[in-house]
Amino acid sequence: MRAGIVGASGYAGGELVRILAGHPGVELTYLCSETYKGQDISAALPNMRGLLSKECVSYDPATAVEQCEVVFLAQSNGWAMNQAAKLLEAGLKVIDLSADFRLKSIAAYQEWYKLSHTSPDLLTGAIYGLPELHKTAIQAANLVANPGCYCTSAILALAPLLKDRLVEPDTVIVDSKSGVSGAGRSSFKLDNHFPELNESMKAYNIGVHRHTPEIEQELTLLAGRAMKISFTPHLIPITRGILTTAYAGLIAPDWTTEELITLYAEFYGSAAFVQVLDAGQYPTTKAVCGGNFCHIGLRVDPRTNRVVVVSALDNMVKGAAGQAVQNMNLMFGLDEMAGLDRAGVYP
Amino acid sequence: MRAGIVGASGYAGGELVRILAGHPGVELTYLCSETYKGQDISAALPNMRGLLSKECVSYDPATAVEQCEVVFLAQSNGWAMNQAAKLLEAGLKVIDLSADFRLKSIAAYQEWYKLSHTSPDLLTGAIYGLPELHKTAIQAANLVANPGCYCTSAILALAPLLKDRLVEPDTVIVDSKSGVSGAGRSSFKLDNHFPELNESMKAYNIGVHRHTPEIEQELTLLAGRAMKISFTPHLIPITRGILTTAYAGLIAPDWTTEELITLYAEFYGSAAFVQVLDAGQYPTTKAVCGGNFCHIGLRVDPRTNRVVVVSALDNMVKGAAGQAVQNMNLMFGLDEMAGLDRAGVYP
Amino acid sequence: MRAGIVGASGYAGGELVRILAGHPGVELTYLCSETYKGQDISAALPNMRGLLSKECVSYDPATAVEQCEVVFLAQSNGWAMNQAAKLLEAGLKVIDLSADFRLKSIAAYQEWYKLSHTSPDLLTGAIYGLPELHKTAIQAANLVANPGCYCTSAILALAPLLKDRLVEPDTVIVDSKSGVSGAGRSSFKLDNHFPELNESMKAYNIGVHRHTPEIEQELTLLAGRAMKISFTPHLIPITRGILTTAYAGLIAPDWTTEELITLYAEFYGSAAFVQVLDAGQYPTTKAVCGGNFCHIGLRVDPRTNRVVVVSALDNMVKGAAGQAVQNMNLMFGLDEMAGLDRAGVYP
Amino acid sequence: MRAGIVGASGYAGGELVRILAGHPGVELTYLCSETYKGQDISAALPNMRGLLSKECVSYDPATAVEQCEVVFLAQSNGWAMNQAAKLLEAGLKVIDLSADFRLKSIAAYQEWYKLSHTSPDLLTGAIYGLPELHKTAIQAANLVANPGCYCTSAILALAPLLKDRLVEPDTVIVDSKSGVSGAGRSSFKLDNHFPELNESMKAYNIGVHRHTPEIEQELTLLAGRAMKISFTPHLIPITRGILTTAYAGLIAPDWTTEELITLYAEFYGSAAFVQVLDAGQYPTTKAVCGGNFCHIGLRVDPRTNRVVVVSALDNMVKGAAGQAVQNMNLMFGLDEMAGLDRAGVYP
Repeated sequence: MRAGIVGASGYAGGELVRILAGHPGVELTYLCSETYKGQDISAALPNMRGLLSKECVSYDPATAVEQCEVVFLAQSNGWAMNQAAKLLEAGLKVIDLSADFRLKSIAAYQEWYKLSHTSPDLLTGAIYGLPELHKTAIQAANLVANPGCYCTSAILALAPLLKDRLVEPDTVIVDSKSGVSGAGRSSFKLDNHFPELNESMKAYNIGVHRHTPEIEQELTLLAGRAMKISFTPHLIPITRGILTTAYAGLIAPDWTTEELITLYAEFYGSAAFVQVLDAGQYPTTKAVCGGNFCHIGLRVDPRTNRVVVVSALDNMVKGAAGQAVQNMNLMFGLDEMAGLDRAGVYP
Repeated sequence: MRAGIVGASGYAGGELVRILAGHPGVELTYLCSETYKGQDISAALPNMRGLLSKECVSYDPATAVEQCEVVFLAQSNGWAMNQAAKLLEAGLKVIDLSADFRLKSIAAYQEWYKLSHTSPDLLTGAIYGLPELHKTAIQAANLVANPGCYCTSAILALAPLLKDRLVEPDTVIVDSKSGVSGAGRSSFKLDNHFPELNESMKAYNIGVHRHTPEIEQELTLLAGRAMKISFTPHLIPITRGILTTAYAGLIAPDWTTEELITLYAEFYGSAAFVQVLDAGQYPTTKAVCGGNFCHIGLRVDPRTNRVVVVSALDNMVKGAAGQAVQNMNLMFGLDEMAGLDRAGVYP
Repeated sequence: MRAGIVGASGYAGGELVRILAGHPGVELTYLCSETYKGQDISAALPNMRGLLSKECVSYDPATAVEQCEVVFLAQSNGWAMNQAAKLLEAGLKVIDLSADFRLKSIAAYQEWYKLSHTSPDLLTGAIYGLPELHKTAIQAANLVANPGCYCTSAILALAPLLKDRLVEPDTVIVDSKSGVSGAGRSSFKLDNHFPELNESMKAYNIGVHRHTPEIEQELTLLAGRAMKISFTPHLIPITRGILTTAYAGLIAPDWTTEELITLYAEFYGSAAFVQVLDAGQYPTTKAVCGGNFCHIGLRVDPRTNRVVVVSALDNMVKGAAGQAVQNMNLMFGLDEMAGLDRAGVYP
Repeated sequence: MRAGIVGASGYAGGELVRILAGHPGVELTYLCSETYKGQDISAALPNMRGLLSKECVSYDPATAVEQCEVVFLAQSNGWAMNQAAKLLEAGLKVIDLSADFRLKSIAAYQEWYKLSHTSPDLLTGAIYGLPELHKTAIQAANLVANPGCYCTSAILALAPLLKDRLVEPDTVIVDSKSGVSGAGRSSFKLDNHFPELNESMKAYNIGVHRHTPEIEQELTLLAGRAMKISFTPHLIPITRGILTTAYAGLIAPDWTTEELITLYAEFYGSAAFVQVLDAGQYPTTKAVCGGNFCHIGLRVDPRTNRVVVVSALDNMVKGAAGQAVQNMNLMFGLDEMAGLDRAGVYP
């Protein structure tokens, strides 16, 4: 399969290059990067030296159509909604890693992203690319909206609880901690300068982060009623990884940790990339670094009758590029783990 | 004033050495360390080279009484409750950095620490050493139980809300992130080995961390009713710093962020070491590294009617040694900022 | 091919598991770990969850012979020299990652490792497993002594200069900087405790590090005369990576940077895993993290007539497990890049 | 004494604020920052909250003269040479932290900095502010050129060897490793972006770093003959600290490590801030973090007859602001340690 990447030199795009270069069923035919156009991809991604040599080019729709069967769009918000139609009309499949097709509500998109949506008609057919929840729809999709990194960790942590109506919907709190690569490769400003971030931690965008409506949209679908959550993102001085700690009040008083773990294990029984840990074990981001897995641990606190669920994933893999490849595998009928079956590094 | 430190080569003890060596009213007369006995303190604390030279010795109560007016105990839990009485009876003042005198309930101490308390009679007179709440009692105390590091950050974050009955007591969640020095200097096991921790994050002791009853004890005093909270500690790959994100449901629907900030600023108006940040600003642990300050930022989320409060402090200073010196200053009628008036390093 | 790993839960052993689990021609039949015996390998290596499930067992020579065609020994120095013979006699091929078979001189082994060599007869047939220098011999070998991590970076940095007699042999200085994983997984002592190492740097074992005679042995072979070098290892607070800066005085005065780069590129023209960078470019350890590559950059300094060569590699991959797999590929006539053709993570 | 800082919001300037705010003999009367003009200094330096409140202003020479007796210039290269004269003519003392007055040779300044020197006449009176070498001259100086951070570590490491003619001048190699704050606060570009630097190492500007002629100038003065060295700077992912490893060939064959340590201890006997470590001990940057000390360890390698000297200092303190305050103390007849007598943080 011939695949193209628009934004191949960014962090998500670079991970797409890394993963797809090792995918047995994919040929990388088209790498677009405005920053590195005319240069070999290894100028942007030195880890590819000796493994892949290909020149970066400027994006051109006609070339994309000619050279690709699937195109990954890893551009800023607002770009894909103007470009996806041409590719879809030409019969290509499109996987967009921006926020443009994630929110079903145009109003919500405008409210949280301050952008008018220019392709509202495409939203209907766009499938939210979280395979653990929407596998069948993804298999039939031509346009997949790949989830945000925080969202994948939050939704996977909470889905079984909401689906089974085990928790009070109004009690859900999501406290997420992210590595710095989540801010993107071009985010080198004073706040992200190494000496300012290193050996520090902070919360940011409390209650107003753009991933909030996306998490709520999916939790609402699961719960069958409108969900409003508290979401607090934090910046942690590591490169990769999101750790999400989710809190919810249990409706029934008698759940044990072991029972909920069994329930989670069943819910994710057919999910290749979700690993539910035993009681007493909690995930670490290191264990998922570079891989497409999401590890989940939980504990019922009988003192407060809350359940605390912790999920860990690599924001650039299961939170971006790996999930996009997982979606591609489903869209094209490939093995869901193709190209994603190598372990991440540890330690 | 002649001061001694028992456990001078540990992380909290080492910070006591650093701070007291620069305190204008203190002479360090007695440094105890089993690990470094017979060696100069700079063998344990290389930052003291050229500034302080003094031999570490084994602890001996009679010598302590002879050489000190105040003794800081920075030993493992269970040590101070067997040793404090002798010092107090000899007329010394004692500041204990362990958990031995923090919990007023012997039952709670036994439940959470799995130790029988051997000095229950001392508990009555022991004052919980959080100056922002108990300044008058500390000024009159002979025995101060210096708070745990997580506890200081959690209690300072929540105190104004509970004191003024602004939040539903059952909704309080405390999500804390700590640097590794909080685990102590002798905690070098596989879990804390550099390659295992570095570039990773994890939650631990969810709902069962020993600081939970200590936080609840103080919040209960403030709220005037029994408090049970969810407390989740996390380990973050930095050396120093605790960031606590606290969540609580507001009782009244109309509070604004600005109003609550004003309320916090008034509550902490006379507190030299608490800095309440303006709306839209959130604290970083870097800003308090090495200093005795606690920075607090908050936001009211009108969507969920919750308030989210974030506090940052240096776990080894305001969370341990600095606070202990602040307590000493109060106990001896010194300027509360004496020895603590130099800025921490930035960046 | 059926492969076994003795010491599968250590850092080098764990990397062998990771790489071999993704090797198309290898079946991992035998995983030995005393620490984790009876447990699944994912208890030791959480990155393997969902990809490999296999119980760790205690080492037993008969079982090894029965279940394996090749065995990787990733044990402490002194272990392999007592165990390799049995495996070799049974017709297995052995790749040893310890120092036991690296030094041709028994006297040097005893001097630097303070151990009597118990299998001096095996030394003759043991091949030093640096494929860029000894490919033909490795292809015919039954016992390969896999190089030390510092050694690979130092020897690859200097080999072309010494082979072509371009530098004064007595002027060679090797200044190496290593991540902490190089110390091994069981090295959790105070010196390596996270808060002590983090945000710090230090030199150690100046002039007496055990890798010195190994570097000198290979440089001596290349130079055709006895080499003595200055070697200074440093500990840097990162998990993976070695950066070596090598200095040597040029014999002739007229070499340019570009000419030496051309010479290096020719020397390593057929080496799949060595990448020589263009003039003005210097390697970073991040670019090789998780991959089996060694990146080399250099500059001639006309002011001092010295050449400065910088090499970067992942100490756990090209400096240990990856190189061992590369050796295995050669020993069994497989593609040299088999199992090693996926890019490491970046950033 | 009334002191002003031009560039108070940069890293060196910020450290000047921190140190001088705690200096018993100094009043900070004038803080200039173009970036933060009109804002309180704590907006730039959050560690100063609660300790110092003062508005940043734009630089104006007349105001500087009116409000200050000493002015620290912490601006980019090329600024001070245009501004210092006015301050000096008005009778102020000036301590410049840029390179403008460090090199005695105008030709060298132009060659290495690509700037024409506009105040060559001031160079004669400018004293190179390394108190361990030039104390008497500094005491009488009106204009001090504060050394570069790499230079202090390199010169202090090598001075005793060259002064006593113990090493072959042509054999000196300086391999330095620096934390990222050395690049300055406004250096937030892709190369210094957290995810690109974190968990990586690299060499840069090999043989062409601008600090080279400054090191050579001072070593030449010590050695009494022209010195040319190899200098390689490296970037290490920590915030603060420089570790320099210096190599030199001993002229005489019989020196022991202990003898050279004795010689160093005597050379630095009256230097308050240089600590010579015992044989077998090597410095760490953590031990000097936040303090004004330089720790030095060394070893004679009898195999190569080279001496390896390692020095560690905080690039922002002894490598910049702390040294500047030390110079101020000398210029004004104050205790050399005034304001610098508090220990840095450890760990």
